[in-house]
Amino acid sequence: MDLFAALHLDELSHGLANLSMFPYFDMAHYIVSIMALREQPGALEVSRVSPLACWFSSMLFCFGGAVLSGIMLAEPPVAPLSNSTSVLFASIIWYLVFYCPMDLVYCCAALLPLRLVLSGMKEVTRTWKVLGGVTQAHSKYKDSLLVMIAIGWAKGAGGGLISNFEQLVRGVWKPETNELLKMSYPTKITLVGAVLFALQHTHYLPLQKHHLMLIYTVFIVVNKSRMLLTGSSTSPFAAIESAIYKTLFTGYSPYAVLTGDVTKACIDNGTTNTATSITATKESSENGAPEKRTPVSPVKGQSGSLKAKEESENTETTNCKKTN
Amino acid sequence: MDLFAALHLDELSHGLANLSMFPYFDMAHYIVSIMALREQPGALEVSRVSPLACWFSSMLFCFGGAVLSGIMLAEPPVAPLSNSTSVLFASIIWYLVFYCPMDLVYCCAALLPLRLVLSGMKEVTRTWKVLGGVTQAHSKYKDSLLVMIAIGWAKGAGGGLISNFEQLVRGVWKPETNELLKMSYPTKITLVGAVLFALQHTHYLPLQKHHLMLIYTVFIVVNKSRMLLTGSSTSPFAAIESAIYKTLFTGYSPYAVLTGDVTKACIDNGTTNTATSITATKESSENGAPEKRTPVSPVKGQSGSLKAKEESENTETTNCKKTN
Amino acid sequence: MDLFAALHLDELSHGLANLSMFPYFDMAHYIVSIMALREQPGALEVSRVSPLACWFSSMLFCFGGAVLSGIMLAEPPVAPLSNSTSVLFASIIWYLVFYCPMDLVYCCAALLPLRLVLSGMKEVTRTWKVLGGVTQAHSKYKDSLLVMIAIGWAKGAGGGLISNFEQLVRGVWKPETNELLKMSYPTKITLVGAVLFALQHTHYLPLQKHHLMLIYTVFIVVNKSRMLLTGSSTSPFAAIESAIYKTLFTGYSPYAVLTGDVTKACIDNGTTNTATSITATKESSENGAPEKRTPVSPVKGQSGSLKAKEESENTETTNCKKTN
Repeated sequence: MDLFAALHLDELSHGLANLSMFPYFDMAHYIVSIMALREQPGALEVSRVSPLACWFSSMLFCFGGAVLSGIMLAEPPVAPLSNSTSVLFASIIWYLVFYCPMDLVYCCAALLPLRLVLSGMKEVTRTWKVLGGVTQAHSKYKDSLLVMIAIGWAKGAGGGLISNFEQLVRGVWKPETNELLKMSYPTKITLVGAVLFALQHTHYLPLQKHHLMLIYTVFIVVNKSRMLLTGSSTSPFAAIESAIYKTLFTGYSPYAVLTGDVTKACIDNGTTNTATSITATKESSENGAPEKRTPVSPVKGQSGSLKAKEESENTETTNCKKTN
Repeated sequence: MDLFAALHLDELSHGLANLSMFPYFDMAHYIVSIMALREQPGALEVSRVSPLACWFSSMLFCFGGAVLSGIMLAEPPVAPLSNSTSVLFASIIWYLVFYCPMDLVYCCAALLPLRLVLSGMKEVTRTWKVLGGVTQAHSKYKDSLLVMIAIGWAKGAGGGLISNFEQLVRGVWKPETNELLKMSYPTKITLVGAVLFALQHTHYLPLQKHHLMLIYTVFIVVNKSRMLLTGSSTSPFAAIESAIYKTLFTGYSPYAVLTGDVTKACIDNGTTNTATSITATKESSENGAPEKRTPVSPVKGQSGSLKAKEESENTETTNCKKTN
Repeated sequence: MDLFAALHLDELSHGLANLSMFPYFDMAHYIVSIMALREQPGALEVSRVSPLACWFSSMLFCFGGAVLSGIMLAEPPVAPLSNSTSVLFASIIWYLVFYCPMDLVYCCAALLPLRLVLSGMKEVTRTWKVLGGVTQAHSKYKDSLLVMIAIGWAKGAGGGLISNFEQLVRGVWKPETNELLKMSYPTKITLVGAVLFALQHTHYLPLQKHHLMLIYTVFIVVNKSRMLLTGSSTSPFAAIESAIYKTLFTGYSPYAVLTGDVTKACIDNGTTNTATSITATKESSENGAPEKRTPVSPVKGQSGSLKAKEESENTETTNCKKTN
């Protein structure tokens, strides 16, 4: 590509494509993943009560993508365990993050500058994982774009996609939410990457692989750093998503009436609703009783627009807080 | 078989056996399956909140049998995605059923005459799927009747058998019920078909394959049409089931005492129970709080007879209404 | 090994290693497993409501290890069904245990002397299953100790490890507990066995296979008999576990403050808490309403010591009683 040559980026992209993930980038991935587990509500208690469940959860955070893509391709999901060095590294990091005396490792790694570097390095591994998944799927299913996307996505965002079952290991069960119902930023960006790499692999995208790797890696690293520094969690695709959503998934239809009704009903009940939930929270905090849950129909009363969707996300977050 | 020759059904059965499911019958299967999803409580809201979760659920409704039998035979569960044409067809139908302007497609397909034709065509695909499963199992496990039955059943009724996990995609979790605890009519008829085709395959059933295909197909199409027209959901096997149940699974036993006690206790608590649950429902509707659930022992106080079973099913339905 | 020769145990261990599990030991395994299922709360009701779900649950109790290790190695999880003789035996025993007239079979097998013999024989099959798993893993993943341990463990204790999903078949869902969070004695002893056999297989443990088989079998049989006779459920490893736990997973750390706070808070709220939960229980027993559940953070306020862990286990048991 001429632009790359003109900007002298050709060598850079070649250099990046030949970069080895092992050991430094892999270690950054393990550290950031296990710290993410530690920051889950209840994870610290589990680490005290059952180190084994905590270790297994950590391995799912670190190798979830390999496990999920293994299951999807009917390859042994225990395969990641056979790579002793990786498991040993991940286990040592798990031990240090959870049980290090004085909690030195976690406190150091949680410092913003170090966290920034580690998160950036972890994002770099994402490119390799997505590409690995797409290549693996390509070797089994020639020219099946959908399988390539699915496997690339599973490999890159496996930990998130299997989060319901990872939580189950820790005795937590939140059926009302999953990564398909409400995608997080890493899951979204991995899906975008899987689509791009699958298109590149089938030559629908007129870009060379190492160029795409450079562009994608820079984009995710920069974006992740921006999010960490500003503390914002707005997706860079919000505008595109909203446009696609409005074009494809709404429009005049009988549901407008249906959802309109529901929305109205919600607004009508709004005050009572909030008031009651405050009381409920107060009560449950007073008596320490287990919280009630909504197992079915987690989503109620959204009107068919993104705004309503966002509102519902806020409501859901509130619910989560109550539930946790 | 002489009877078939006498009735000039030999050619008809040969013609049926050579019928191609693609594209018309497959499309009918997709339409009816996705309409069944749309009629699930909460599905419309999910389709507005997360089109991706809705699409994934639809694919599980359409290809659930292939996914489940793939997992059971350690073949890649993503394989159905590699058949681009089928996935494209199913996705277009998913889009039209859920998001068509003016809701034209759903309204048309829901008209009784069209629905009757589509449901009939969908039932025809069941024969092919069960037979495909039995053949696939036979090629891997020669002469293992049980594996053939299991794979034939999984392939024909996969969507129902994995319904707990399909619901999880939509954020719904109903552990207290599944297709094994309380089989629906399609699951039952598919099991019967799987048994018949497995017996035919191992030559225990002295019938030719195309004759059995004709008989089974006619039976399920006629029965489905009858059920749609009369609105009844009584199984044609109710009498046989009841007889088998009474012969094999009851009789004088210490449990009679046990279950009798439970039943009595239930009757004693009946009035209070109902009264309270009405209050509970009222309260929960007032404050919009998440409902309570019974995760364990969904079945309480059945006496050891089919009558009690039916009553319990009613109770369960009531519970479901409360839970939803 | 000289000690074995001196004690004339060489021949005994050879004899044991050549012992065939089929049919007597396998049958003992089926009987004890299915009796364990029958003693689960709610299992008898399920056996009356849905014999099929009960049968499927029984098969998971009998062949859970083979199913789980099959999934982990990407081998067909239906494979156990292809062994018709075993399935037939297990099915006959399932029928006799659940539906035998006068409940003769269960009552006989539940008599202490017979139960003792059957449980001892079942424990013998554990050695063979663990060894089978380790060998199977070794043939696929040379020298990967972790995979050998995982597969040996899965094969020997599969029924327990998949208990959450086995329960789901019966309509029971208890996400707040699993065998990783709170290991039962059979799961622990199987893990120890898997570690030993994996070490022997990779020659880290200087013992011959048949000698290790003899030692391990005698240990688990004697221990099981002791537990049955004394009714105690204390693990023989409690002291070692506690030592390992105190050495590795505690120590001065910021959590001490955190968990201390939580513990204090718990103590402070103790009276109110208990009072409220009594009220809650009373209410729920009055109105027969489904109980509330703790889906998240099953473990609250443990201080970082085994004592606290044991206390929490008691609390959990109390919760279970309430939940059931």
